[in-house]
Amino acid sequence: MIGEPAHSVHDSASRSRSNIVAASARPFRSSAYLNRRPTVIASRLCVRSDARSPIIEESSVILEEIREGSAVSDETFQRARTPAQRARRVEDVLTATRRLLAEADVTALSLGAIAREAGLASSNVLRYFGSREGVLLDLMDGEYALWLPDLDSGLRHTGTAIDIDQVAATTAATLAERPLLSRLIAASSELLRYPMPDEALERCRGQGRRNQAELARILGGALGVMLSVRDQAYLVAGLHAVVGAASGWSVQAAFPVDFETAARSLLAIQLEGLVVRAEKPRLSSAPRLE
Amino acid sequence: MIGEPAHSVHDSASRSRSNIVAASARPFRSSAYLNRRPTVIASRLCVRSDARSPIIEESSVILEEIREGSAVSDETFQRARTPAQRARRVEDVLTATRRLLAEADVTALSLGAIAREAGLASSNVLRYFGSREGVLLDLMDGEYALWLPDLDSGLRHTGTAIDIDQVAATTAATLAERPLLSRLIAASSELLRYPMPDEALERCRGQGRRNQAELARILGGALGVMLSVRDQAYLVAGLHAVVGAASGWSVQAAFPVDFETAARSLLAIQLEGLVVRAEKPRLSSAPRLE
Repeated sequence: MIGEPAHSVHDSASRSRSNIVAASARPFRSSAYLNRRPTVIASRLCVRSDARSPIIEESSVILEEIREGSAVSDETFQRARTPAQRARRVEDVLTATRRLLAEADVTALSLGAIAREAGLASSNVLRYFGSREGVLLDLMDGEYALWLPDLDSGLRHTGTAIDIDQVAATTAATLAERPLLSRLIAASSELLRYPMPDEALERCRGQGRRNQAELARILGGALGVMLSVRDQAYLVAGLHAVVGAASGWSVQAAFPVDFETAARSLLAIQLEGLVVRAEKPRLSSAPRLE
Repeated sequence: MIGEPAHSVHDSASRSRSNIVAASARPFRSSAYLNRRPTVIASRLCVRSDARSPIIEESSVILEEIREGSAVSDETFQRARTPAQRARRVEDVLTATRRLLAEADVTALSLGAIAREAGLASSNVLRYFGSREGVLLDLMDGEYALWLPDLDSGLRHTGTAIDIDQVAATTAATLAERPLLSRLIAASSELLRYPMPDEALERCRGQGRRNQAELARILGGALGVMLSVRDQAYLVAGLHAVVGAASGWSVQAAFPVDFETAARSLLAIQLEGLVVRAEKPRLSSAPRLE
């Protein structure tokens, strides 16, 4: 997730330039438009509440459960569960989500669907994960945890020579074996689009830091360069940009693109640039963020 | 649009590896899921038909217009329009779309909404553009046509020295002034997700070729390198990956990222890698696409 590319790309103070883009995050509320076709508006609002506005969706799902009498009260719930049982439930939710994502798009998957597939009340899923996005970001972290050892051992087998093409090829090949990770990376900015509960945000920040450091250790080690914290953030941001884009291109019916080929080619270019800049730090006049 | 990155990244023959990812493009139809909550299913289907499945949406909109008697017949329509009037109508549709995108997301904007805003029947919009995606891809081409001269003149003013940081900074700054272009680039793989009418596909392919050649001429000229057709495709693919990602990160409420800063940093790394590889073509063992 690009949310914790350390302190470099992340820049909350200077958002003024992105205000026009940020405007697109506002609900669709042109009054001229609203006055015309209520049925189409309704379907548009359902796009937003289902895929984009988790807070509204979550509250309404919980209200619905309370009305139906299916919500489990805090008291009953907390008393009934041991830490081991809680861990098991968390794993159940992630497994259910993984199962649903075999057919559903990441951005279209709702909290209610996840809860039903896991056999839990939505309120319980929220208790464990904080939000629908929290579930999906935790799943991404889980996929990262499966991928990184594959990448590590794949690169150890290629010998000691620094060969950027080989590093890019191994990275792309191991990612191609885990399309769900690439799809979650592609959707991650959408998942981070709305504010999250503090606890989920902190967990997500910790996951980002850990994965960034581990990826930098593995790829930096294979390439024989020691990456600064700034360059580690660029490494992850660049990888996410390429992997997210290649994942989207790979499902284009109009112009199909092979994921692995696209990711390998663009990663090689990016790693080449990163290594050149890491090896020869510049005292240039170009603006820097720190 | 990554649809016409020449012959390199594009690879229709070897899609087998992306089959698992491609599976996510299939309609959501788990029967276990379908048996549970009809109302939620309905809202999920409306997400798909509104935002993702233009063909279904377009046919139903046209049928609705015919029922309401608002559709204009082919005969009447073609006889009433001179080429100048047709060009004017095309411009009206693009202007209306631009206006709607000041508040709506690219992926959420429907054909019906565009037609209403332009004061036309949906069938007429389809006659001009082939599909909803055709409108949005033509708008992207229009934004490219506005941006490229800005980029060209921005880079001419920076003098004759080859400075990758300066080229990246000017590219990012001129893009930051046109957030709509970055948003359309970010959405382009979604727009190319479903098959398009042949004519729209050909138009889109031509636009991609033209913009790729022009971008390579401008950036290659500023950097003092002559890019091969393969490297031109990598240049555009890499730019789209970075710009699309930075556009998404810039609207993250959870972890806001400044578009221009992120795009500038990652583009500089990518251009550095591209120049190194363009200047020193390798006889490496790494797989190539040609």
